[in-house]
Amino acid sequence: MQLSTKHLLGIRALTREDIELILSTAEQFKDVLQRPVKKVPSLRDVTIVNLFYENSTRTRISFELAEKRLSADTINFTASGSSVSKGETLLDTVNNILSMKVDMVVMRHSASGAPHFLAQHIPAAIVNAGDGINEHPTQGLLDALSMKQALGTLEGIRVAIIGDIMHSRVAMSNIYLLKKMGAEVMVAGPPTLIPPYIQEAFGVKVVYKVREALEWCDVANVLRIQLERQSQPLFSSLREYNLAYGVSRRLLDGLKKDIFIMHPGPINRGVELDSDVADSGHSLILQQVENGVAVRMAVLYLLAGKN
Amino acid sequence: MQLSTKHLLGIRALTREDIELILSTAEQFKDVLQRPVKKVPSLRDVTIVNLFYENSTRTRISFELAEKRLSADTINFTASGSSVSKGETLLDTVNNILSMKVDMVVMRHSASGAPHFLAQHIPAAIVNAGDGINEHPTQGLLDALSMKQALGTLEGIRVAIIGDIMHSRVAMSNIYLLKKMGAEVMVAGPPTLIPPYIQEAFGVKVVYKVREALEWCDVANVLRIQLERQSQPLFSSLREYNLAYGVSRRLLDGLKKDIFIMHPGPINRGVELDSDVADSGHSLILQQVENGVAVRMAVLYLLAGKN
Amino acid sequence: MQLSTKHLLGIRALTREDIELILSTAEQFKDVLQRPVKKVPSLRDVTIVNLFYENSTRTRISFELAEKRLSADTINFTASGSSVSKGETLLDTVNNILSMKVDMVVMRHSASGAPHFLAQHIPAAIVNAGDGINEHPTQGLLDALSMKQALGTLEGIRVAIIGDIMHSRVAMSNIYLLKKMGAEVMVAGPPTLIPPYIQEAFGVKVVYKVREALEWCDVANVLRIQLERQSQPLFSSLREYNLAYGVSRRLLDGLKKDIFIMHPGPINRGVELDSDVADSGHSLILQQVENGVAVRMAVLYLLAGKN
Repeated sequence: MQLSTKHLLGIRALTREDIELILSTAEQFKDVLQRPVKKVPSLRDVTIVNLFYENSTRTRISFELAEKRLSADTINFTASGSSVSKGETLLDTVNNILSMKVDMVVMRHSASGAPHFLAQHIPAAIVNAGDGINEHPTQGLLDALSMKQALGTLEGIRVAIIGDIMHSRVAMSNIYLLKKMGAEVMVAGPPTLIPPYIQEAFGVKVVYKVREALEWCDVANVLRIQLERQSQPLFSSLREYNLAYGVSRRLLDGLKKDIFIMHPGPINRGVELDSDVADSGHSLILQQVENGVAVRMAVLYLLAGKN
Repeated sequence: MQLSTKHLLGIRALTREDIELILSTAEQFKDVLQRPVKKVPSLRDVTIVNLFYENSTRTRISFELAEKRLSADTINFTASGSSVSKGETLLDTVNNILSMKVDMVVMRHSASGAPHFLAQHIPAAIVNAGDGINEHPTQGLLDALSMKQALGTLEGIRVAIIGDIMHSRVAMSNIYLLKKMGAEVMVAGPPTLIPPYIQEAFGVKVVYKVREALEWCDVANVLRIQLERQSQPLFSSLREYNLAYGVSRRLLDGLKKDIFIMHPGPINRGVELDSDVADSGHSLILQQVENGVAVRMAVLYLLAGKN
Repeated sequence: MQLSTKHLLGIRALTREDIELILSTAEQFKDVLQRPVKKVPSLRDVTIVNLFYENSTRTRISFELAEKRLSADTINFTASGSSVSKGETLLDTVNNILSMKVDMVVMRHSASGAPHFLAQHIPAAIVNAGDGINEHPTQGLLDALSMKQALGTLEGIRVAIIGDIMHSRVAMSNIYLLKKMGAEVMVAGPPTLIPPYIQEAFGVKVVYKVREALEWCDVANVLRIQLERQSQPLFSSLREYNLAYGVSRRLLDGLKKDIFIMHPGPINRGVELDSDVADSGHSLILQQVENGVAVRMAVLYLLAGKN
């Protein structure tokens, strides 16, 4: 089995079979990660550059660990203190790195579409590690793996995505993936943070009350309030956001059922998610992080075979 | 032989046997480091994160080299440009990293007690690489190894610690260790930089004249003036500090004996230590650095066997 | 065959035989880099520190890849966030690192002569990765390898170096190397950016019109306008520089012959070099980058055998 694509630019470009292949490969790598010897020789003699134009800790470390456990050689590049500040174009930077015989590019960039632009101009495989407000496909995949492991399937499950939908590449990758795999999706949050076209364009339900979303769903994927992506503050205080849209123990106790809680991290405790919810037995948050390494190993492994 | 503890949080929590075990193990690793092949396979398949919330060069590089020579996989995390600046809690950051199947945490933090807090909440082994003004245990151990190699024993030796005792985690780890091992300890420095309780609490002698300390001791461990830790300047100039408390060639020539000189680095030449003292035949400063890698290898090796 | 020197401080100190040995060794490593398995065990058990006191992306990554492909262990040190900001001297920093059993030092420093100073005081091999406005010897070597591969020889070829000659360590290393190897050299650029002594001191031709240099040469090595090295702006705008001294398609089309175009990167497109020139079939720019890794492997390999 092979992927239908040479890059992982977004979930949008993947087929249902691609997604199934990545998830089943990730499950095999997850088994490897339980062993005392967590390293496999699959990408020995493959060199990967981690090209991070935006700050990131968890995603960069997760990719770096995935690469090391596949035995790849890695080079880290961050925009600060680099030729970027000397005015070099993105394409020149990448072409230079590739000329040093680098095989794959993992990239995060603040501009939506930056990896898609690169993919049209360079011969190496590109993995999008987050581009602007467009997509964060490995997050979408690790979220899906976590849901599948908790609920047994993605087909027909009900997923509520809660928070700032408009500025969230995580929301977009989740919506594309879940709809392709036959899940039902609802988004919930402040009206100003939900794109008006989203119901028509993507076939997702929209509600503006968090309680309503929680009553409907099997899994709530609670997004981080990303103050850094908003051009002006939308709430007079984080406390106000928490009261109106935060997921609290009290809200969950009012439901007639148990639901699973997810969050892409880092958590603003007491803002979008209360601490006793984040740490509860129904929280999948740390499983998401664990699955992240396995999913990234799967993506790198499957793409390396294509180029 | 095994350590009595699962973490290295501070010297305070170690037994005399723990210290002896670490020092003798370090001496074996020091032999390894003299060979052309300096790498041993002891920690193959162990992944270690270096979690530095405070800037550091020598300590981070020393740990990183120790880890590489034990064949461990390493991940570097620095606070700048990380999820820390996005408001994530320390515990969330570490739990996330551990979910990626990381086995050990080496951490430096500006808050005294940060590693002790973590140790109560996470399953992995923690090595304290310096916490606030509390302890810097691997520095205490490498200092002890350097003294033991210079003087043949720690039992009964006289060690003067000179400088800013109040803000120094190096002083604290040295005092705990030397007292446990039967050495005599004196502190010397400006009265405003020596805690008033120190004689009663720790059984160390206190003097306020550097000459007096030098006349008494076998080894002088001269601390760095850490302007970055003082809330307000205590001297009108560094030159003034040098005249009153600096260790100069002239002072040493006035003694009736030779003493060994130590310094944890980085040296402020001409402030706490004059250049001809730092570079003299009785300086142990570069041996301290060399011993640092061996001691850190020993600590990581002994803790890895415990978890 | 062996190098006549224990360090690579600059091209000035190399013999013609040294240069030939490095270039022929680099050609062998370049063959290795074409293979699926790009790694050789030559520097296994050698530890190299990359000591970068000035920001750099391409040079640091190129050295790091060269080291990894030689199987060396590497430690990265950058000046920001280090003991440098705590006032430690260069010599103390390096002596400390060497005490940790580090074998070779690759260093970039803003002070001309910094690596030469170090070489007189430390036992390890030093590779200059750029010092102030003095030399950038591995750039000179990779430029030479690129010219030799394009033209078959360095003997008698005509090389025009165009741009800000006065502030360019790349220009200096090129001039030293090309004159030693029997090439003819011309420099061209604004009169204020060409040292008045350069013709007498180095035997290079000087012209002030770019067209004249292009008409004369086989290869044009176009330098980056390094605004960061100029104490005051020399042009009212970059557009003005481009009109007067930029290398454009129109200029090249006016020549009666084809010439090769080189640039050390990062390119200011539309300033010193127009895009259609940088990307043309006669551009050697990406070959330069590729040769960089091979040349650095050769230098590290040949120096490791000397120490």
